[in-house]
Amino acid sequence: MSTYSTPKKLAAEFIGTFWLVLGGCGSAVLAAKFMADGVDTGLGIGFLGVALAFGLTVLTGAYALGPISGGHFNPAVSVGLAVGGRFSFAELPGYVIAQVVGAIAAAAVLYVIATGNGASVGNFATNGYGDLSPGKYSMVAALVTEVVLTAVFLIVILGATAKRAAAGFGGLAIGLTLTLIHLISIPVTNTSVNPARSTGVALFAETPALGQLWLFWVAPIVGAIIGAVIYKALLATASDE
Amino acid sequence: MSTYSTPKKLAAEFIGTFWLVLGGCGSAVLAAKFMADGVDTGLGIGFLGVALAFGLTVLTGAYALGPISGGHFNPAVSVGLAVGGRFSFAELPGYVIAQVVGAIAAAAVLYVIATGNGASVGNFATNGYGDLSPGKYSMVAALVTEVVLTAVFLIVILGATAKRAAAGFGGLAIGLTLTLIHLISIPVTNTSVNPARSTGVALFAETPALGQLWLFWVAPIVGAIIGAVIYKALLATASDE
Amino acid sequence: MSTYSTPKKLAAEFIGTFWLVLGGCGSAVLAAKFMADGVDTGLGIGFLGVALAFGLTVLTGAYALGPISGGHFNPAVSVGLAVGGRFSFAELPGYVIAQVVGAIAAAAVLYVIATGNGASVGNFATNGYGDLSPGKYSMVAALVTEVVLTAVFLIVILGATAKRAAAGFGGLAIGLTLTLIHLISIPVTNTSVNPARSTGVALFAETPALGQLWLFWVAPIVGAIIGAVIYKALLATASDE
Amino acid sequence: MSTYSTPKKLAAEFIGTFWLVLGGCGSAVLAAKFMADGVDTGLGIGFLGVALAFGLTVLTGAYALGPISGGHFNPAVSVGLAVGGRFSFAELPGYVIAQVVGAIAAAAVLYVIATGNGASVGNFATNGYGDLSPGKYSMVAALVTEVVLTAVFLIVILGATAKRAAAGFGGLAIGLTLTLIHLISIPVTNTSVNPARSTGVALFAETPALGQLWLFWVAPIVGAIIGAVIYKALLATASDE
Repeated sequence: MSTYSTPKKLAAEFIGTFWLVLGGCGSAVLAAKFMADGVDTGLGIGFLGVALAFGLTVLTGAYALGPISGGHFNPAVSVGLAVGGRFSFAELPGYVIAQVVGAIAAAAVLYVIATGNGASVGNFATNGYGDLSPGKYSMVAALVTEVVLTAVFLIVILGATAKRAAAGFGGLAIGLTLTLIHLISIPVTNTSVNPARSTGVALFAETPALGQLWLFWVAPIVGAIIGAVIYKALLATASDE
Repeated sequence: MSTYSTPKKLAAEFIGTFWLVLGGCGSAVLAAKFMADGVDTGLGIGFLGVALAFGLTVLTGAYALGPISGGHFNPAVSVGLAVGGRFSFAELPGYVIAQVVGAIAAAAVLYVIATGNGASVGNFATNGYGDLSPGKYSMVAALVTEVVLTAVFLIVILGATAKRAAAGFGGLAIGLTLTLIHLISIPVTNTSVNPARSTGVALFAETPALGQLWLFWVAPIVGAIIGAVIYKALLATASDE
Repeated sequence: MSTYSTPKKLAAEFIGTFWLVLGGCGSAVLAAKFMADGVDTGLGIGFLGVALAFGLTVLTGAYALGPISGGHFNPAVSVGLAVGGRFSFAELPGYVIAQVVGAIAAAAVLYVIATGNGASVGNFATNGYGDLSPGKYSMVAALVTEVVLTAVFLIVILGATAKRAAAGFGGLAIGLTLTLIHLISIPVTNTSVNPARSTGVALFAETPALGQLWLFWVAPIVGAIIGAVIYKALLATASDE
Repeated sequence: MSTYSTPKKLAAEFIGTFWLVLGGCGSAVLAAKFMADGVDTGLGIGFLGVALAFGLTVLTGAYALGPISGGHFNPAVSVGLAVGGRFSFAELPGYVIAQVVGAIAAAAVLYVIATGNGASVGNFATNGYGDLSPGKYSMVAALVTEVVLTAVFLIVILGATAKRAAAGFGGLAIGLTLTLIHLISIPVTNTSVNPARSTGVALFAETPALGQLWLFWVAPIVGAIIGAVIYKALLATASDE
């Protein structure tokens, strides 16, 4: 992990998080529903396609960039890995900055594309609760959802990259976990589990998503810490970490 | 398999079955159909998304937790593996209890989330036959479906984890088998092949699903035993088990 | 390949082809469209789900049973592998019989399940052209489709299982090729590329599919031979076969 | 890479690009929407199925043919790999010709099949902007989309096939990246990132797609060069290339 220079690691995290937001939020904004002449064509990819897209950003980024930076692409993951003893707290601030800047850059590119047919961007795939939840779920439901799903996400990440785990399959398992998380929770919060992803698009949305952004920093990070603590307490063994 | 302590194994089975029910039943309850203002938006993930979600819970759980506990997450699988000679009957009761408790815990968390927008939970992704079958299939059709699909499930599990099998691909093959099983049979029984999954959600449903729960213990376990017996009789070789 | 006894190989081919028909045709018959009270619910898995199901039967069967029998599950594949020099012509008759019997057994089980809610089985996922083509494609279009797709199928199979190929990934590539083939061609012929699959369900259909069955033996086998010849002529090297 | 003769390499690129166009454009033309008696059945595979199909052509082609030719199947990829130092500029012209000829051959076969029920081929899955964009996106939006997505495509390709990358997983990551790219951008340009794919179908379309073909040569190639330059500048290390 330490064989790559810090600039290379930060470049990998910037590009990976750029890819996550462009791919995941991009598919949601551009392709979830496909209207022609004001009529739903039924060709859109729906929540299933968006869930697949988010997972594939991480799966592909993990195989391409993971060997350089570890392939976090997510401040909550970086925090959880630090708590779990797999990542250095000293590197944490740089990683988080690279991730957030990458997410904002992707949201800017997506804004240029999405407005390229004269459309407005609307909620721009932002996360939200209450009136800004796709299915109008309460703040408590949103909190529980984001905390629990990020906790399991970290348990899978820590388990699938332990020494005992099948070599090479980590990127597959972790990427598809993000797909699964989206399959469950898009209706609840539009699915964050990633504060950088939430921040990037919130800056461009026409809705007051920025006012709810705090939850999508707090809940994923709390969940990631809980996941890492559970993993260390119940599942880790000295020889396998 | 015996290098991990019993508490670690049981924790892995609890977490894995929690994940299976939260992910599989959660996606069914929250995202299969997505209504807005009483109108179907067409964005829901449908039975295809639910089938993918169930499979991904096992695929991801297998890579993350499989090295610790074997990654059963299902009492029928534990029984079948014991009959097939890959798991100890002595460990069976503990595994089954951990699985059922994990499933109930997941159903409780899902209940909190699902009611977080004021909705009722309805059938809560329970399994059923006759009037409680999604497509009104008879008890006999349900029995045949659950027995046959669990039998093949066990044959795949035993084959894909034999010594001769490609190393590392077991989690992929087994998880995607569960996806395939759901692609076939959601209309028939809402797909169980897993008594713990059936039990967890039945406790919270508004329908009389508990009264049919017996079938979703009997049929998967009978099917698992049949699968293990077929495997041993027709496919196993001494050097590969 | 010769380390397993003939009965084990034939059992593996029987079970694998049983699984292919039960999973592929089963998902088509039971779940492609899901009606409730005579109205399309929009929850059905559609051609995309059916395509995924067919591919997953082969993917999962290949990892579970491939080490025993080679994992053909398809008379055209067995013929093509024999022509390609990877399978013995002496074993061909036994394989084909096991495959056809497995397909018929699966169709019988599916018939019991599918009629378990009082429904008629209709075309029962049979293959056809002209009036029996889902999209009313002509016999010539059906022939071209089945020949070309089976030819490429064999090229992928021979390439992905050559010595030079990445170890372990053959089952993934071959299974997903069958998914891809279905994504292209369900509207044309309902997709065969497999005479055993076509035969099994044709015996139970309420349509005159049996009268067109000849094409779904001739075209896939001709295509498989063409694929194997192309592979040997253009792609094979002595050291890699 | 140099252990195979040039004819074998060119045959592999011809077949792989044939497969990409037949599978990707074929699924779009034949199966994206499935009408019966003039009514949308809801069974079609939609943009999600088309995205999956494109990705699976590359995934399956990479495992079957990649060891022979490198598995480019795309002039922009060949250019990017040459710029990135992984492919010889001397081989570039031959590869590009084989790819374009393979794409045209596939489009011809697809034309025969698609007109086999008396239908006209319409836009024949061509790429376009402005009036020829599925969602009426401007030329600028199309340029940005094709440049950025091809750039990331090359970064993933170069990263996932570096020496440090997990062995064997390159085909999986690269194929699924193409799926992801389609999930994002079908509404914008119908997704090219591949000049050969754009050329093959443009020759048969009933729309004036040929007049816009220049963009789908320029943008993917410019994007590929940018991706390769970014990769070399920010991510490459001497020991891993």
